[in-house]
Amino acid sequence: MKTFLLVLFLGVFLVATDVHAGKPTCENLTGEWINELGSTLTISKIGKDGKIDGTYASPSGTGGKPVALIGWSNSLSPKAGKDNVRVVSFSVHWGDYGSVTSWSGACSIKEGKPTISTIWNLVRSNSDFAWDHILTNSDNFNPK
Amino acid sequence: MKTFLLVLFLGVFLVATDVHAGKPTCENLTGEWINELGSTLTISKIGKDGKIDGTYASPSGTGGKPVALIGWSNSLSPKAGKDNVRVVSFSVHWGDYGSVTSWSGACSIKEGKPTISTIWNLVRSNSDFAWDHILTNSDNFNPK
Amino acid sequence: MKTFLLVLFLGVFLVATDVHAGKPTCENLTGEWINELGSTLTISKIGKDGKIDGTYASPSGTGGKPVALIGWSNSLSPKAGKDNVRVVSFSVHWGDYGSVTSWSGACSIKEGKPTISTIWNLVRSNSDFAWDHILTNSDNFNPK
Amino acid sequence: MKTFLLVLFLGVFLVATDVHAGKPTCENLTGEWINELGSTLTISKIGKDGKIDGTYASPSGTGGKPVALIGWSNSLSPKAGKDNVRVVSFSVHWGDYGSVTSWSGACSIKEGKPTISTIWNLVRSNSDFAWDHILTNSDNFNPK
Repeated sequence: MKTFLLVLFLGVFLVATDVHAGKPTCENLTGEWINELGSTLTISKIGKDGKIDGTYASPSGTGGKPVALIGWSNSLSPKAGKDNVRVVSFSVHWGDYGSVTSWSGACSIKEGKPTISTIWNLVRSNSDFAWDHILTNSDNFNPK
Repeated sequence: MKTFLLVLFLGVFLVATDVHAGKPTCENLTGEWINELGSTLTISKIGKDGKIDGTYASPSGTGGKPVALIGWSNSLSPKAGKDNVRVVSFSVHWGDYGSVTSWSGACSIKEGKPTISTIWNLVRSNSDFAWDHILTNSDNFNPK
Repeated sequence: MKTFLLVLFLGVFLVATDVHAGKPTCENLTGEWINELGSTLTISKIGKDGKIDGTYASPSGTGGKPVALIGWSNSLSPKAGKDNVRVVSFSVHWGDYGSVTSWSGACSIKEGKPTISTIWNLVRSNSDFAWDHILTNSDNFNPK
Repeated sequence: MKTFLLVLFLGVFLVATDVHAGKPTCENLTGEWINELGSTLTISKIGKDGKIDGTYASPSGTGGKPVALIGWSNSLSPKAGKDNVRVVSFSVHWGDYGSVTSWSGACSIKEGKPTISTIWNLVRSNSDFAWDHILTNSDNFNPK
């Protein structure tokens, strides 16, 4: 009996851990995501108001130390004749690098995998001209 | 004498209030800003870590009710031969509209006025195709 | 009588020339436009297929020498309940600078003046990282 | 001997044809490219001045009929410590749809394949508000 309870307990524990440590999906974005450059987007919490809290770690250009990330997630019920996705926006402050980056996009299944496809803008404090402070490009994130 | 002190006190109080209620600047972004479309950006607080808290109210497309705004501000010391600006990124969640918007840009003096010049991306949950969820354009904000 | 006709003819000729050399409008984009940075956009021809030919001269970052410009203009009849504008896209090749820029936007009246409001992307061949080749920002052009 | 020469001739001819009909590369962009949405970008010619001529056919949203495409390609010699890519910009006129699209990006090898990675802006003549005429997103093109 004791053994049975122990096994049951262990089983429940493992299932719970598995759920907790599960890969993120487009329905539940919380978890770890990685992009083509090897940057890790960690969404640790999404509030009832859609507020995202997490961290971002980029090995290219900023040394890889995680920085705080904030943002929003929003969605609507699917509508006939419309393409329906969960939308996201998140941003970070690059500390002493003097810049900020914001990503805007949506989550959908691409090549069988949940994918957060984004466009980003990075604004830098110091640049050569008055007009070249903003960089842009795209980033795709898949479950890490 | 009492009257004098009272007047002095009132004067100091009014000056302090005036400073407190003063127009925002590129050095201190806190306060109310308005763009060409009549939208009001209110930056109520900027933390030591650069975190921005505030609200955003847009009369065009969303009824004008203020929504929560979060973001980041960053800056660097000026550097010889470089154009130096205070950079910002902020975003909002449009509630039941099912969308999010993020702005990215910088504050500098334009035509004599502090101006937050931004590029924005709005992502909508429902759209006609898989590829047309993201809108973009520019917004300039001046002290309200 | 002869003198009168000559004067009349001259008058008509001058008026016609004036119209021809007149400032560009949102209906007829051909002519010279200038932006906030002092760059001159010259639209010399718009084909029946909407093709734009012209030149672009930018004093900031590229020395001011005009370079060839190509692009497209398109429009639709106004539709009830819709905002209607003439849309444009044009691009240039910055020669030995190793970059290209494309502008996308539309013409409408802003503060009483025809204004081509655009978002642009500049792509540079050499940059610090694989991800920072593209710059972005906005540009507004008014009749020069 | 005659047969041998004929075979040799045929062989040379086939090789030449094969080269001619070969897949595009980042060094020579001319040829057919396809993106994730199944759109075909055909670069038929690149002038000495970097001018691109070709066609674009998109099955999603515009019926798939090819439309004329113009643009620019540019490059620089690699420089120590810099990431070096061939940059491109190209645009199309969507005829009676009343819109134009421009793509901006660069060609590099991604996952072993030549890839033109771009950011695009589509501007539409009629939209709901004065501020929502421009759509944006990213597109990756690989040899078809």
